[in-house]
Amino acid sequence: MSKGETNIIVVMRKGAMARQIANVIARVEQMGCQTYISEGEEHTTIGVVGNGRPLNREQIELMDGVERTVPILRPFRLASREFHPQDTVVPINGITIGGEQLIVMAGPCAIESREQLMETARAVKAAGAHVLRGGAFKPRSSPYSFQGLGEDGLKLLAQAREETGLPVVTEVMDPDTVPLVTTYADILQIGARNMQNYSLLHAVGQAQRPVLLKRGLMSTIEELLMAAEYILSHGNDRIILCERGIRTFEPYTRNTLDISAVPLIKQLSHLPVIVDPSHATGKWELVEPVSRAAVAAGADGLEIEVHPNPEEALSDGAQSLKPARFAALMESLRLIAKAVGRRM
Amino acid sequence: MSKGETNIIVVMRKGAMARQIANVIARVEQMGCQTYISEGEEHTTIGVVGNGRPLNREQIELMDGVERTVPILRPFRLASREFHPQDTVVPINGITIGGEQLIVMAGPCAIESREQLMETARAVKAAGAHVLRGGAFKPRSSPYSFQGLGEDGLKLLAQAREETGLPVVTEVMDPDTVPLVTTYADILQIGARNMQNYSLLHAVGQAQRPVLLKRGLMSTIEELLMAAEYILSHGNDRIILCERGIRTFEPYTRNTLDISAVPLIKQLSHLPVIVDPSHATGKWELVEPVSRAAVAAGADGLEIEVHPNPEEALSDGAQSLKPARFAALMESLRLIAKAVGRRM
Amino acid sequence: MSKGETNIIVVMRKGAMARQIANVIARVEQMGCQTYISEGEEHTTIGVVGNGRPLNREQIELMDGVERTVPILRPFRLASREFHPQDTVVPINGITIGGEQLIVMAGPCAIESREQLMETARAVKAAGAHVLRGGAFKPRSSPYSFQGLGEDGLKLLAQAREETGLPVVTEVMDPDTVPLVTTYADILQIGARNMQNYSLLHAVGQAQRPVLLKRGLMSTIEELLMAAEYILSHGNDRIILCERGIRTFEPYTRNTLDISAVPLIKQLSHLPVIVDPSHATGKWELVEPVSRAAVAAGADGLEIEVHPNPEEALSDGAQSLKPARFAALMESLRLIAKAVGRRM
Amino acid sequence: MSKGETNIIVVMRKGAMARQIANVIARVEQMGCQTYISEGEEHTTIGVVGNGRPLNREQIELMDGVERTVPILRPFRLASREFHPQDTVVPINGITIGGEQLIVMAGPCAIESREQLMETARAVKAAGAHVLRGGAFKPRSSPYSFQGLGEDGLKLLAQAREETGLPVVTEVMDPDTVPLVTTYADILQIGARNMQNYSLLHAVGQAQRPVLLKRGLMSTIEELLMAAEYILSHGNDRIILCERGIRTFEPYTRNTLDISAVPLIKQLSHLPVIVDPSHATGKWELVEPVSRAAVAAGADGLEIEVHPNPEEALSDGAQSLKPARFAALMESLRLIAKAVGRRM
Repeated sequence: MSKGETNIIVVMRKGAMARQIANVIARVEQMGCQTYISEGEEHTTIGVVGNGRPLNREQIELMDGVERTVPILRPFRLASREFHPQDTVVPINGITIGGEQLIVMAGPCAIESREQLMETARAVKAAGAHVLRGGAFKPRSSPYSFQGLGEDGLKLLAQAREETGLPVVTEVMDPDTVPLVTTYADILQIGARNMQNYSLLHAVGQAQRPVLLKRGLMSTIEELLMAAEYILSHGNDRIILCERGIRTFEPYTRNTLDISAVPLIKQLSHLPVIVDPSHATGKWELVEPVSRAAVAAGADGLEIEVHPNPEEALSDGAQSLKPARFAALMESLRLIAKAVGRRM
Repeated sequence: MSKGETNIIVVMRKGAMARQIANVIARVEQMGCQTYISEGEEHTTIGVVGNGRPLNREQIELMDGVERTVPILRPFRLASREFHPQDTVVPINGITIGGEQLIVMAGPCAIESREQLMETARAVKAAGAHVLRGGAFKPRSSPYSFQGLGEDGLKLLAQAREETGLPVVTEVMDPDTVPLVTTYADILQIGARNMQNYSLLHAVGQAQRPVLLKRGLMSTIEELLMAAEYILSHGNDRIILCERGIRTFEPYTRNTLDISAVPLIKQLSHLPVIVDPSHATGKWELVEPVSRAAVAAGADGLEIEVHPNPEEALSDGAQSLKPARFAALMESLRLIAKAVGRRM
Repeated sequence: MSKGETNIIVVMRKGAMARQIANVIARVEQMGCQTYISEGEEHTTIGVVGNGRPLNREQIELMDGVERTVPILRPFRLASREFHPQDTVVPINGITIGGEQLIVMAGPCAIESREQLMETARAVKAAGAHVLRGGAFKPRSSPYSFQGLGEDGLKLLAQAREETGLPVVTEVMDPDTVPLVTTYADILQIGARNMQNYSLLHAVGQAQRPVLLKRGLMSTIEELLMAAEYILSHGNDRIILCERGIRTFEPYTRNTLDISAVPLIKQLSHLPVIVDPSHATGKWELVEPVSRAAVAAGADGLEIEVHPNPEEALSDGAQSLKPARFAALMESLRLIAKAVGRRM
Repeated sequence: MSKGETNIIVVMRKGAMARQIANVIARVEQMGCQTYISEGEEHTTIGVVGNGRPLNREQIELMDGVERTVPILRPFRLASREFHPQDTVVPINGITIGGEQLIVMAGPCAIESREQLMETARAVKAAGAHVLRGGAFKPRSSPYSFQGLGEDGLKLLAQAREETGLPVVTEVMDPDTVPLVTTYADILQIGARNMQNYSLLHAVGQAQRPVLLKRGLMSTIEELLMAAEYILSHGNDRIILCERGIRTFEPYTRNTLDISAVPLIKQLSHLPVIVDPSHATGKWELVEPVSRAAVAAGADGLEIEVHPNPEEALSDGAQSLKPARFAALMESLRLIAKAVGRRM
């Protein structure tokens, strides 16, 4: 953050009047800053985001109703717990993510056919999953690999939701298709490779849907929170973060799940965080123990790949669970959830 | 690459007739494959890119004029030297990249004002630079940082070209602005964070401009070549690759320049490769020795940040050279270029 | 592994006679190979480790009592589960590591004084720890940092064992001090920086003590198992592996705990594996959630830093728990242990 | 560095008297600190290394002859250029490393036989190499790989020196064999895996031989300089640093050569630095361009693997040059050396 930047939190006195709050806002906006109000149980706080010019904190501290100002050292603000001390709970079609209940999103990596999707949807619903996942637009490292069914996939997803009642999450890859995907999906997923695609973050920041933001495989926790900051600063505060493994030198697993990121993000931010053990490990045998670890570490949920015939999957078969194993995993997670004071 | 994929190179006999070549193409296209013809001095080769179904190589080897078929094990093909043995030389407004001459692209990270850009443009031109760089759309990790001047920046760039005669390179961040940037720029730059933004790769693959594709900061060389493959497979073969450092555990430098990538890419691919020592090191004091190393290792050029007042730069000041130091660097590069049989 | 190497497992028929087994051993030893016998419930297997010369598997398969031979592709053998299918359980002064019970090793990073060690020893004993840890010889990256109390520290450790009844684990840094440390310690610890100090591995391979082998912060899982192989091949099979975080680009934590390594090592090897959440995270606030994750993922135990006054610790204060927090952690681990069918 | 530590440099006035210098030394040693004197052309400086207790800089600045004191922020001191501004030049049997002349050390990874060593020694001598390298004690990740000829190898090395006149460098793996290796070798090599083997650093710090210290494959530049600090603080200041590649996620090369480390180390430290392109890349085809890059970046020399029959080498054949290619490389390096104002 360059030295001239202005990012402070103004903490108003307990019982500060609406007029005093409005005056503070008017003053800092006059200085060219943006403001974000957060009304807590005791204190109202005003997040002030500057535009590079220095800001005189003393001037503000002299205003009526102001208790003190706090400089913000971390480069993210709206995403920070300092700015928003309470946990954010994201409501999605009757369920919520970030509260006491753990949320499991499950389904195939790529939607391949109606049969494949429906069979999986019924199976994960029966096992207790809360959200159906499935990719219609697939970012693939090779231009010759299966790129997804596109809108046909989205339609199948909507049908699966209708039949099972499960809300659906699917990836959106560019700003232009945000409106289309929003028509069908309950949650918009930003994939790891697009975590710093700022045009896309801008677009989903203006969409009327919760966003599942996956950590880039090359991104620090701070960069993940900065990407969330982009979405928040464009007006969308229904964000779910997802740890899905980072790239390291270890070759046995596809990526290295950064399990410490879960409690660390909960400490730094108010946003809910889930874990994707399928992409993190790349091996279905590791999905179960790693899912248990994620819940034990405090994750708010999981996103897991399930496929009726992993050996025939067009994408990521090696890391997909069969329905029966997924059902067994759900049983084992119930025990861990209980041990950490959560429920499934 | 999934097992059922079909990617082979058909090597035609020396002196194979046009009719024989056409027959082979017709046959494999009938099988649902795409073909790419490359006429070498001795042999014509036909790159065959399948669509997932197995292909019977023996059937093709029995056809008239076919010498042999070669399975392609690497996942990139159009970008591979096996497929296209001769060096690709990219022509840009009177200069060429990938030939005997080394090309230096220089200018500010971000375009800030007419004065800043013009002063820099004149200085780098005087020092012998071949292309002017300058960012109008800036991908910044913070939503609160300077995001670039947008189209106003592009207009300034066009004016600088008019005055100095230098072709210009600038970054394009999303598919929607490709037409706009194409109007102004001679080379479209894909930044490191967008190396796997497939919608953007698709868009520049259809644009009528050379593309400068920067390696992602946590992308393998193979992934870089796969990203080039996306652009190639959409029809644009004027691609310049750029090594700009990868993310490692070493904190002294911003990134770690992978110098071995230069000769390795030249071995694996026919595309020209340049080095960006400014982003790779993040420190202006290291730009000179690292630039010399890049040329000694066989790079086809350099992209270097130059700013008249680095201490006041809105972006990346610490890694920008002042014009006088840039001029001294150009002198020192001439000696290295000569030592490796190249010229500036 | 070079192509000429000879590493196979000979699987004897169910009910093979001792004479037949002896004949196979004699034959392969005559060929210059070493053998390791493992008597399973149904089949006896003979691990054959060659010395670089090719070995004719068919000759051996023709011998009486031999069912089949299995080539070993992984470079580690004695450490592999293929070679030794049953879990290894390491007995230590009345407790065992690798069985149903989880083992917690706790204590200060460095032994600083009698008071500090005794106070910690009593506290961790009261909270239910099974082993006391404490460093007398400290590998420090600076020659000017506290290097440990040396033999005086070992004596304090022995006194703490006498008073509390807890077995003790402490680091050994070079071959010369192995005999000295063996006099005092119940478990010899090989630190992360020494994981590939082959002279030291050789020395502890010949010592009469269990070895706690910590994964190097730059080492792959395979390299960790190869380091264990060194110890095993010198005759010591009482090895406990320890995942303690690897070095990545993420700066918020000291290292990145590779949680997937726990189930992966259990799959690849028969050796018990524990987790060190203190060094992995470098932050005491993360020790509790990460410890829970380790147990949920299947770890056989934990090694945790506890210090009565972390703010005054001569080494690693930021990652040490105070006794009260350690006691609370032990309570919370009991619930997770139960949820995965283990006990404390 | 913990907050209470005391590390300052005392800069004496130009023309300060010996008595004044002695008084400063006496005072700070009385405070429990160590001192290191460095007599420059103009100023004498006294490096003061504390032992954890705070030191009152003002008291010292008030003493006669003291110009000022400079706190040292970097954790290494004796290795720092601040402490020792002039380049260190290490003399070795008639040649010097760190001066105008570039030094090339060449030879086989492992000494396998008299014939192999003598043939290589003669070839590298004829091509212009300055030092013969060859491993007698080999740290190998597998206990079943060739571990070197031991003392027999050292004897062959001494014979090769006698015949060719080339000084020899060979690895020492543990403190106990330092006296033995010192008997035969002109330079003691510390391998990458032992860079933080502090007992070994201590031992070579007391040896009467120059030390070639290789950077650990996951060590930062600061850690490398701290390892040099161990050797320096035990009395040996004839140290040559070696960049040999670090571990990253890129799989095409064995390691990733950190070319920026060369100018960075020259800036931070006074010690000479060479590059090992063979281990850095693991591919002989890359050794030539990467060697050229190292010299262009300012390296003081190279260590290169040469083997008469790489395809039959017992260790690291894939990265060894044949004698003819090595001779060609030497020719090409002469041109680069000239371009950067050095000579071979």
